[in-house]
Amino acid sequence: MSSIHAEYLSKAIAAVKQKNPKNIYFVACGGSMAYMYNQQYIFDVETDIPAFILSSNEFIHRSPKGLGPDSLVVSCSHSGNTPETVEATKVARSKGALTVAYSHEENSPLWQAAEYNLHYDWGPESDAYEHKAGMALRFIFGALNALRPNEKYARALESIKDLNNIFERNKKKFAAEADKWGASHKREPIIYTMGSGPVYGEAYAFAICFLQEMLWVHSSSIHTGEYFHGPFEITDYDVPFLLFKTAGETRPLDERAENFAKKFSQKVTVLDAKDFDWTGIDKDLYSYLSTPIFGAVSRTYAERMAEHRGHPLTVRRYMWKMDY
Amino acid sequence: MSSIHAEYLSKAIAAVKQKNPKNIYFVACGGSMAYMYNQQYIFDVETDIPAFILSSNEFIHRSPKGLGPDSLVVSCSHSGNTPETVEATKVARSKGALTVAYSHEENSPLWQAAEYNLHYDWGPESDAYEHKAGMALRFIFGALNALRPNEKYARALESIKDLNNIFERNKKKFAAEADKWGASHKREPIIYTMGSGPVYGEAYAFAICFLQEMLWVHSSSIHTGEYFHGPFEITDYDVPFLLFKTAGETRPLDERAENFAKKFSQKVTVLDAKDFDWTGIDKDLYSYLSTPIFGAVSRTYAERMAEHRGHPLTVRRYMWKMDY
Repeated sequence: MSSIHAEYLSKAIAAVKQKNPKNIYFVACGGSMAYMYNQQYIFDVETDIPAFILSSNEFIHRSPKGLGPDSLVVSCSHSGNTPETVEATKVARSKGALTVAYSHEENSPLWQAAEYNLHYDWGPESDAYEHKAGMALRFIFGALNALRPNEKYARALESIKDLNNIFERNKKKFAAEADKWGASHKREPIIYTMGSGPVYGEAYAFAICFLQEMLWVHSSSIHTGEYFHGPFEITDYDVPFLLFKTAGETRPLDERAENFAKKFSQKVTVLDAKDFDWTGIDKDLYSYLSTPIFGAVSRTYAERMAEHRGHPLTVRRYMWKMDY
Repeated sequence: MSSIHAEYLSKAIAAVKQKNPKNIYFVACGGSMAYMYNQQYIFDVETDIPAFILSSNEFIHRSPKGLGPDSLVVSCSHSGNTPETVEATKVARSKGALTVAYSHEENSPLWQAAEYNLHYDWGPESDAYEHKAGMALRFIFGALNALRPNEKYARALESIKDLNNIFERNKKKFAAEADKWGASHKREPIIYTMGSGPVYGEAYAFAICFLQEMLWVHSSSIHTGEYFHGPFEITDYDVPFLLFKTAGETRPLDERAENFAKKFSQKVTVLDAKDFDWTGIDKDLYSYLSTPIFGAVSRTYAERMAEHRGHPLTVRRYMWKMDY
């Protein structure tokens, strides 16, 4: 699919360049929304274009007044079938916004709803460069480079060509740790996740998708900057935390939370982006590229817990099984 | 303090009018940040001025590129002493932004850091109109009315004069329910809160301030639009939820989450803004005014639980007791 992907991408990026958006709304639900934290963060730090993240149904009903013909609305649904995200895309398009949608399914309702579409591959045999992780980075840095040309964005686009190798190397590097975590935490009734900056999205995704949805373990993602303003009072010797420590700008927040949590809990696990195998990647890109690596590596933690619990990640009791 | 409050307010609002900000950052930590969801929401729905919420330390380290001389930065710290919020305010001011800070303490570090200050009263003997709840609404609707004059904002400013009575009537109305909830939930190890729109901030505050911080009960706030995209899989007959159901635009999200949760959990408690005593308030203001009412009423739920658990809301193990 790679040539089609590149063709879709270049059309969407050309449209973004032409629109020169006044503001950007990233709109999706659950794991798809979580992945947009990185995209919103990159725009926030690199440009003065206001960028927002909203869960699809909130976007529909809140109806932000800034949404209009000068807006770019980026939506995502893996199946292309999430009703709220399809509807949100229709709402955005009806207001004249430029709509760009990511999904795995061509000709899905989301595909029909959006003006521009970005298809991505899925499954173990395909390359991460053609997955959601790769396509999102290619779109974001492509759009940035079109709107505000910069050698850094061009370098980022080159670096992510190696994304599949980066993922594989890091999954291997953390395989033993992942298994140890899965085994030692399999009977925990609640596990908190923590993160900041763009990585907060991965902490959120791990809490709601892997722990709550797939493993039926109670969880909450705690922003490491917020930890000291309430949540830290539940820290105790037996309360588990899984911290995704960024290599980016907000690392001091993560370090502070780590130092405190380790004093009072015996169950603090830290996945540190500085420990990732970064071969071939420039340091000034660590912050933005760490999010998908956290995604790939943390999935193996969930997989090992699933194995040790005998509760496959595919098991659901409600999702896709009934109307809701 | 009421005449001084009005004087501070009118100076800050005049400065906002003169600045005519290109964007607005609401910056604080924990409960002070949670309260800004309502303020951000009002700007999002009523104007096309981009408005953001960031936890203070994230704001400092992320350093959004949109922050500059055309920005308004609104910060808040009850004590005026929260180091991250003081620093964030200094950063904003150093970049030329107009800085307005709410706090209870005059001449605190935050008071020194901000160009304009809004003092608020505290304690049971003072009037809610002069509290943070009242001052925030007076500032937001005052600023809106200065930037985009509208009879609705003028009516809002009139209505909130009665805030103290509204709070008292509603605390009384829900007193029996609050006690019932506190007694029946006192042994729960985890309680989820839910909300959407501006009320999501109150669900967040209840989770992190009342449950985690003050009562040492595990918790997580779930956005009702996100519930179906992961979190709902942890719903079970014995999992408690406390839903803050808005009377505003996003009510359909709350209704959907309520209907589902009630099918599979026997412990769903709903605090519905439509059941509030709204005497004297126009319907088109319910959405914006419900957030502080949720704040006042939900506090009584926490107070009753504290009583039944024998664990006063003032107890802390870490906060203010050590360096962190």
